[in-house]
Amino acid sequence: MHAVQFTAETSANGVVERDFVVGDVPGVLWSPASGPDGAPLVLMGHGGGLHKKTPAQAARARDAVTRWGYTVAAIDAPGHGERPRTAGDEQARAEMREAVATGDNHRFEKVSVAYARSLTERAVPEWQATLDALQRRPEIGPEAPVGYGGGVSLGTAIGIPLTAAEPRITAAIFGGGFFVYDDLLAAARRITVPVQFLLPWDDAYVDRRTTLALFDAFASPDKTLHAKPGDHRRIRWSGVDDGFLPRHLRR
Amino acid sequence: MHAVQFTAETSANGVVERDFVVGDVPGVLWSPASGPDGAPLVLMGHGGGLHKKTPAQAARARDAVTRWGYTVAAIDAPGHGERPRTAGDEQARAEMREAVATGDNHRFEKVSVAYARSLTERAVPEWQATLDALQRRPEIGPEAPVGYGGGVSLGTAIGIPLTAAEPRITAAIFGGGFFVYDDLLAAARRITVPVQFLLPWDDAYVDRRTTLALFDAFASPDKTLHAKPGDHRRIRWSGVDDGFLPRHLRR
Repeated sequence: MHAVQFTAETSANGVVERDFVVGDVPGVLWSPASGPDGAPLVLMGHGGGLHKKTPAQAARARDAVTRWGYTVAAIDAPGHGERPRTAGDEQARAEMREAVATGDNHRFEKVSVAYARSLTERAVPEWQATLDALQRRPEIGPEAPVGYGGGVSLGTAIGIPLTAAEPRITAAIFGGGFFVYDDLLAAARRITVPVQFLLPWDDAYVDRRTTLALFDAFASPDKTLHAKPGDHRRIRWSGVDDGFLPRHLRR
Repeated sequence: MHAVQFTAETSANGVVERDFVVGDVPGVLWSPASGPDGAPLVLMGHGGGLHKKTPAQAARARDAVTRWGYTVAAIDAPGHGERPRTAGDEQARAEMREAVATGDNHRFEKVSVAYARSLTERAVPEWQATLDALQRRPEIGPEAPVGYGGGVSLGTAIGIPLTAAEPRITAAIFGGGFFVYDDLLAAARRITVPVQFLLPWDDAYVDRRTTLALFDAFASPDKTLHAKPGDHRRIRWSGVDDGFLPRHLRR
């Protein structure tokens, strides 16, 4: 059982940013410079090829801290950000690049799914160990409501099995932008907490029908789909329901 | 050219409700008890079998008046509310009831589409004449921004061709709950103003794929789909983007 070890701290505009490791998994915790302990904790998962402090994710995290007083945690996915890649990771990435370069969409999907499966198998227990460790911090504690705060593409491909496996997560924001495979559909069918799902209507690679089938699969009685034109790399989710987390992460 | 003739007026909680006729089309205008002239005007269309003061629609209208200071207008669709039905209307309604009673979904769709076409052909020019007359009222005027404020089912089946035909409408809220037919898709392809589309995910009769194709057809660069589980008769649109009209109906 690993504890949270803080390695760096900065502070700006009322938001404290602390880098940490739990075991060999590096993460970052954004929290209010002042406020009561036990604030809701939101987990954010970055997209494929990105990292825990990707600007768009860091901006969403800071916004959640300043608007609602939440604590936000993000970790680097396996082989992302500060983390070493395995030989298998390197091979998967090379094959994905090659498939895109040659316009072989079938191969791109096949390699992407295999890579996402491999990352997810590693990432779910890492998130659970991180959550265990964060809940042992006195400023968070075991009673703070926990939500999954989204991230499209890889962040959701990991977030869905994590939320299905993890009863501590009581509301989740997911988003499209990745290939949907059978294990993800099966995990979605086990999710019953409120779900907000963001669908980029015109993803460059993913057939939207597969993502609509994924939304359909969630067992959650309270689920809402928000779709806007554009590919997941460029889309901005203004004008959707900003009140989702505050409604569902009450202390 | 008909003028607005007011026939009744009541007032409660800061909202003035005035019944009117334009020619032989009865309508209702909700407006703030006090406020500047030229407030944005929102047109609301009720669902099939309902009428201009249906409680859910009246509540949405009053909310738009009190929250944003808007003026809201609604009219009875042909053969609805206070309006007489033609022999063709009566026959269509009888056939729809019979098709539902016998579980003949194919016939129900066929008759529903023919009836919606007939209602829409009559309703679009009625809405345009109503809008002409309303804009000649000094408290509204020709400069007030005009939006179509939704209503699922029939309100959208009429609202889509109206918005396609009517350059005065600069933003529109639509919603599913009706059979999509070719003329509606063609009208959607001519719409370029911002669209907010509410999709009941589990409509009792309508295959959601047809409604998703309708959303896909809008030419609007700014369009957002919001979907929630449930049939269109029961669904409540809490937790979607309440800021849509205020963003797009600026004076």
